[in-house]
Amino acid sequence: MSESLAMSTTNPDLQIIPLPGNEPLTHALAEQLGAERLELEHRRFPDGESYLRLHGDPGSRSVIVVATLDRPDEKVPPLLFAADLLRDLGAARVGLVCPYLPYMRQDQRFNPGEALTSRTFARWLSNHFDWLVTVDPHLHRYASLDEIYSLDATVVQAAPALAGWIAREIENPVLIGPDAESEQWVSAVAEHQNLPWRVLAKKRHGDREVTMDLPDMAGLESHHPVLLDDILSSGATVAEAARHLTRAGFDRPTVVVVHGLFGDRARELLRHAGVSRVVCTNSVTAPESDIGLSTLLAPAIKAHASQ
Amino acid sequence: MSESLAMSTTNPDLQIIPLPGNEPLTHALAEQLGAERLELEHRRFPDGESYLRLHGDPGSRSVIVVATLDRPDEKVPPLLFAADLLRDLGAARVGLVCPYLPYMRQDQRFNPGEALTSRTFARWLSNHFDWLVTVDPHLHRYASLDEIYSLDATVVQAAPALAGWIAREIENPVLIGPDAESEQWVSAVAEHQNLPWRVLAKKRHGDREVTMDLPDMAGLESHHPVLLDDILSSGATVAEAARHLTRAGFDRPTVVVVHGLFGDRARELLRHAGVSRVVCTNSVTAPESDIGLSTLLAPAIKAHASQ
Repeated sequence: MSESLAMSTTNPDLQIIPLPGNEPLTHALAEQLGAERLELEHRRFPDGESYLRLHGDPGSRSVIVVATLDRPDEKVPPLLFAADLLRDLGAARVGLVCPYLPYMRQDQRFNPGEALTSRTFARWLSNHFDWLVTVDPHLHRYASLDEIYSLDATVVQAAPALAGWIAREIENPVLIGPDAESEQWVSAVAEHQNLPWRVLAKKRHGDREVTMDLPDMAGLESHHPVLLDDILSSGATVAEAARHLTRAGFDRPTVVVVHGLFGDRARELLRHAGVSRVVCTNSVTAPESDIGLSTLLAPAIKAHASQ
Repeated sequence: MSESLAMSTTNPDLQIIPLPGNEPLTHALAEQLGAERLELEHRRFPDGESYLRLHGDPGSRSVIVVATLDRPDEKVPPLLFAADLLRDLGAARVGLVCPYLPYMRQDQRFNPGEALTSRTFARWLSNHFDWLVTVDPHLHRYASLDEIYSLDATVVQAAPALAGWIAREIENPVLIGPDAESEQWVSAVAEHQNLPWRVLAKKRHGDREVTMDLPDMAGLESHHPVLLDDILSSGATVAEAARHLTRAGFDRPTVVVVHGLFGDRARELLRHAGVSRVVCTNSVTAPESDIGLSTLLAPAIKAHASQ
């Protein structure tokens, strides 16, 4: 931001700070919020310990920390150190913009002795931050974040951004959810542009074999299939769905997801399954992050940070 | 441990659990304490999240978690998850044996805006564990752990183990501290075996140049120099000291440290500086961990865990 721009748009009571790797989204949000950007230096000592130093003074103002948390474990200590530091330096309120919120899946003990990481992780963030803005957390057995988060949380839905992208980029689409769990995302996106949608049904045969059943696709044969889900991690479910669609004679599908985590071999798997293109939002920074979220995030952040 | 051995020595009220990588020390401690070992499974999902599962039942008993914390950041979330899990499953007390305790160096703001990571880290451990046993933490400006740790902490000194190793392995040693800060470790070890010792003096010339002055070594020319310090991280200070000693005509020195962290190029640096051998304790698992600590640790652990 140039000096003149900064002078014309900056809200002196609002400061925004990226954890390393979150600079592009922070830049976009700073412009939309008129927030002043501060630099947080983070490096590691030769023994792997984190060193953090804030360049700038948070005064007694409202500070926004931007940190998405894919591959979370090594990012968690510096993030919580940063929250403590800001409060220590006098910040009045410290909020977190965490577009991808991890540790939502272990929401019950599926086997005896399992750690309920979702609850512990929620407590850590709640103990260090005043508020949280995130995008489509993987809510499954929890009805809302409030069940486990004691801070003030707002969930932003990516559906309008996904629907807008599909409307612009894909001619004659049909939205496909790869399994029953994806229905909530698929129906929400379809609704925004009044698009046709279907959900595949997984069938389990014994312990290991999984088959998928295509739903009734009559009248949709000439549509371009868009496979839609909230998280792409191993890519296995989406790849399996893509194989079913191409075998049934459909176009090579486009995959659109909110959070592109891309586990080790996910891209290779999708390519082999016949996927023609993969896109995701910038909740995680990936080459596929073509769908920007800052316009959807800014109002939610402003509501918290201006309190 | 075989079934018969377990039956003869196990204290059914004491359970010990290694975080991954801490199995050898845990094994030794289990035998000395007569504690039952439980297995904590830790793996990562494709997206990098930790999955933890305890195999076994902590009942309402006293549980000892063994986790050394070199390269700490990615180890911290699983460790704190484990503490929460054990309490969740009913453990009466959860203690931590952390032979290398990180985040002790940032004990003041050397520059404005720096994070006091030592304090935040101390709060995390204190919030998750009932007690802590560690080995020679890098206490510098803090007089004791109690200044920042609110849990019940015991510091075990490695000096007897280091002194014993030197007495057994080195003929005619003289102990050398590479800088003033190392004096506390060097004098403590020397005292145990009544060995001669000296400390080098660092002199700073301007911002970048550092020289070292050899102290008066009259009468010690034929002794074998043993460079001693608490932590070996980058290896730069010890390497510089080794160069001074060999240039002054001494034997190629042996390096003995409590905590062998071995930053990226530390081993290479020491070799080039003329160091003949490096040994450290098993506070961190390294090829150089020849000095065992379990005999020194066991009584301190027993005192906490049996409460």
